[in-house]
Amino acid sequence: MIRFRILIEYDGGEYVGWQRQTNGNSVQETIEDAVFEFSGARVTVEGAGRTDAGVHALGQVAHFDLDDGPDALDSRTVLNALNAHLRTENISILNAAVADGDFHSRFSAKKRRYLFRILNRRPPPTVDKGRVWHVSQRLNARAMHRAAQALVGRHDFTSFRSIHCQAKTPVKTLDLLRVTRRGDEIRIEAAARSFLHNQVRAIAGSLKRVGEGKWSESQMREALEAKDRSVAGPTAPPEGLYLVSVEYDD
Amino acid sequence: MIRFRILIEYDGGEYVGWQRQTNGNSVQETIEDAVFEFSGARVTVEGAGRTDAGVHALGQVAHFDLDDGPDALDSRTVLNALNAHLRTENISILNAAVADGDFHSRFSAKKRRYLFRILNRRPPPTVDKGRVWHVSQRLNARAMHRAAQALVGRHDFTSFRSIHCQAKTPVKTLDLLRVTRRGDEIRIEAAARSFLHNQVRAIAGSLKRVGEGKWSESQMREALEAKDRSVAGPTAPPEGLYLVSVEYDD
Repeated sequence: MIRFRILIEYDGGEYVGWQRQTNGNSVQETIEDAVFEFSGARVTVEGAGRTDAGVHALGQVAHFDLDDGPDALDSRTVLNALNAHLRTENISILNAAVADGDFHSRFSAKKRRYLFRILNRRPPPTVDKGRVWHVSQRLNARAMHRAAQALVGRHDFTSFRSIHCQAKTPVKTLDLLRVTRRGDEIRIEAAARSFLHNQVRAIAGSLKRVGEGKWSESQMREALEAKDRSVAGPTAPPEGLYLVSVEYDD
Repeated sequence: MIRFRILIEYDGGEYVGWQRQTNGNSVQETIEDAVFEFSGARVTVEGAGRTDAGVHALGQVAHFDLDDGPDALDSRTVLNALNAHLRTENISILNAAVADGDFHSRFSAKKRRYLFRILNRRPPPTVDKGRVWHVSQRLNARAMHRAAQALVGRHDFTSFRSIHCQAKTPVKTLDLLRVTRRGDEIRIEAAARSFLHNQVRAIAGSLKRVGEGKWSESQMREALEAKDRSVAGPTAPPEGLYLVSVEYDD
């Protein structure tokens, strides 16, 4: 058995999300089908981040196992074969490498980085349609950044957690939460070992409230401390969210 | 009569180009229809750059005239009404202002800036599909930049001109031609008072030859001096090209 680790970029707009579902094409299943087409093997492709429908990835990581032996495929062949079979999809494999047998894309991950892009202007997006959250009302990015700092560190993030979240505990450690503006675009960068389901989108939806002045900066902390999802802001739409990278010890 | 000057962003992928055509929806006609819908006036919307099918604009400029008088519309109303009627299109009006009666988007322009984006990696684009030229073979951006400098200044650009170009003279002054790499992306920036038809795309296609080592750096100058379109490289595809801005004296 050889374990392959792959680095994946995709436009989430055409998929029901990373994870296999009954209601449409998932990124996971599409890659599993591509593996089958060139290897004849029915494998499970395990991803580091289970991105929702519409969420993009610039650096998703996944792993799967293929047979060892005299006909074993090398990583370069796997990379090229995957991209050849994904040609008509909005999924690209950026890299493939042989990994240790105990490497696990999800459980071995030490840090995940997400980016949430807001196009903050009245006219709707054109070249970035489906790739940003369009917010017409002017947002104060500095106030958003200051308010965001209350969330950095180890906290119970129940207020920023989907009711569908399956994590055993709502306690997570947020290593970074940075809000910056560049022209009409506001970027929210978040990094943590792991995130709760919808955590970044719930944070983005709450930060928008601070940005538009509906919330004072201190209300971000109050929302966190309430440990009540209904107190925080709405979940921001998926099209602004990108899984940027997943980091491991190696 | 009031002359309005508008700033326009569009995704060129869904249009036959800026200019009105019989074979599909042009950006020009789409905006003219929007003007008609809110004003009842059939106007000509004159654009600064006649971008081809598939070419994007981040800052196209155009002008049109509406009736003066007691019911005259102000620029804010024009801006909002245009965007309301363009809601289902991939065209956004970023700004509208009243201009002098002798302002002409095309003839008054003092400088046009274009950007050509190349995604330079083996895997195809996903989130940037339709927004970059995908070139698999590794390109040497520094060599491209050095070779590009032979084109800066006043020259006969016959070698980089479409056979359909209607300009009176092939002599143009290129103020800037810069090639930079950032990660997997190579950006070609070009600025001039005006360009010949397909000039930036023909230059991009030729610079690619330098980047992949098929041409020496000096062959860029030789191609220019040949004054023969067949000597230069092929015209790069439209999806990598962006009309970034148009500058005027004011």
